[in-house]
Amino acid sequence: MPDFFVHPQALVETESIGEGTRVWAFAHVMADVVIGRDCNICDHAFIESGVRLGNGVVIKNGVAIWQGVEIADNAFVGPNAVFTNDLAPRSRRLPGMAEHYRDRPWFRKTMLEEGATVGANATIVCGVTLGRFCMIGAGSVVTGDVPPYALAYGAPARVRGYVNRTGDRLEERDGFLVEPETGRKYVLRNNEIQEAS
Amino acid sequence: MPDFFVHPQALVETESIGEGTRVWAFAHVMADVVIGRDCNICDHAFIESGVRLGNGVVIKNGVAIWQGVEIADNAFVGPNAVFTNDLAPRSRRLPGMAEHYRDRPWFRKTMLEEGATVGANATIVCGVTLGRFCMIGAGSVVTGDVPPYALAYGAPARVRGYVNRTGDRLEERDGFLVEPETGRKYVLRNNEIQEAS
Amino acid sequence: MPDFFVHPQALVETESIGEGTRVWAFAHVMADVVIGRDCNICDHAFIESGVRLGNGVVIKNGVAIWQGVEIADNAFVGPNAVFTNDLAPRSRRLPGMAEHYRDRPWFRKTMLEEGATVGANATIVCGVTLGRFCMIGAGSVVTGDVPPYALAYGAPARVRGYVNRTGDRLEERDGFLVEPETGRKYVLRNNEIQEAS
Repeated sequence: MPDFFVHPQALVETESIGEGTRVWAFAHVMADVVIGRDCNICDHAFIESGVRLGNGVVIKNGVAIWQGVEIADNAFVGPNAVFTNDLAPRSRRLPGMAEHYRDRPWFRKTMLEEGATVGANATIVCGVTLGRFCMIGAGSVVTGDVPPYALAYGAPARVRGYVNRTGDRLEERDGFLVEPETGRKYVLRNNEIQEAS
Repeated sequence: MPDFFVHPQALVETESIGEGTRVWAFAHVMADVVIGRDCNICDHAFIESGVRLGNGVVIKNGVAIWQGVEIADNAFVGPNAVFTNDLAPRSRRLPGMAEHYRDRPWFRKTMLEEGATVGANATIVCGVTLGRFCMIGAGSVVTGDVPPYALAYGAPARVRGYVNRTGDRLEERDGFLVEPETGRKYVLRNNEIQEAS
Repeated sequence: MPDFFVHPQALVETESIGEGTRVWAFAHVMADVVIGRDCNICDHAFIESGVRLGNGVVIKNGVAIWQGVEIADNAFVGPNAVFTNDLAPRSRRLPGMAEHYRDRPWFRKTMLEEGATVGANATIVCGVTLGRFCMIGAGSVVTGDVPPYALAYGAPARVRGYVNRTGDRLEERDGFLVEPETGRKYVLRNNEIQEAS
């Protein structure tokens, strides 16, 4: 059994949790969830059955991860950020909705790729991919895919620039992405930021 | 006593809960609350004293329903959607505010009519009516009434189209509302969508 | 020991809480927190180590107060309002981020001055000061300082007018701020609203 931490006030119904992961007070991790190593699941978070989280993932306070939201290694989800998996939710008790929910035409996936950041209180409308190491600004409403390393914010969120893996903003200059402090030049190539040769 | 489900980690202080309703972990339903049949009150929800919920209502995770928010049958409130009942809240400890809060000039109601959907992380500024079967987009800020069957989103939310009871978008064409898959034509008449004759 | 109230389902790890303060169900107040007199810490709130709250502060449901957020007397934080203390958060497990988080160049403070109101579901991007008795509208995204007595809303939030201490809107007329009901004239002088002589 790996050595992970569950706060006495947390509710954890899976045993598939990796070494070094911590689950904090009033968080609820349902059965049939798989969580990797070294994750941090903060107070009042909720992880629904069927979810798999990579290694090193941070889920801050008050975040719910629904079935259909896939979260790769080292992604960061800020406090009260909100995901969805249904574009047009209705009560199942309405006529015709029981079959609708059983047959799952409503279901839309969302992908957070490696190292992506979702800012505090952002809303992620389902059906999108948030690319590797992208950064979504606090309070944004994301309605479309976000490219790798992009900084996107607003409602709806638009790409406003680029960041590196440690979250520093890069300047676009002469077709390159430039680190202001170092003057180092990068290009975005095959979804990777690479040093310009 | 009707047969409803209360999770062992939930806190329920009313007995007025209808058959088939479920209240999940870390949810708190206060005294003097009335909840109908077949409702689903999800984790970390909060229902304040004085609230009445209809039948078949879904309150997703992290939603607080305050006194003054009336929720009719089969309404759906998405995760972390936020209601209010005071347009200009202040601490009661400020000079002059104790009387202000006692006399209740601050109090504004909000009405969710039958089958209305409030999207995830939407903010509903108090004093509005969300009409029958309307749909409020995720992350929206609602500051005025929304007509029945309207799809409204943005900040502030504006009517952007119409949906039917099962949440499918209708196209406005030649004065009719048309279901794209079936070509069936509807008109909005007396706050009801009706098949065009 | 002062006489304060802690709900049996709350989790309170500090003893530095003032007389008359109440902490409600499923709230979590960490160690090394200082809370003043007559505060109200509502359900599902979270107060992180290192935080100090003044007297008469209201923290509504689902709000997390992080280290670096300073809250003066009689401030009001609406339900699900969200604070931050890091402009570009990443998982600490990414290469280079452990040192980054240890050395704290990322850390940005936020100041709520006396009597300030943060509306429901507002997002406060760190590094700003919300001036005395200002009012931030529900669902806003605050990205800069807000002057005292200002009413600011939108995303990003802009100053749209002024309010008095009890939250009534003032009209700007002939260089004065005027209470509509009374006709009383005020000027904003040294960050204080004063009656015009």
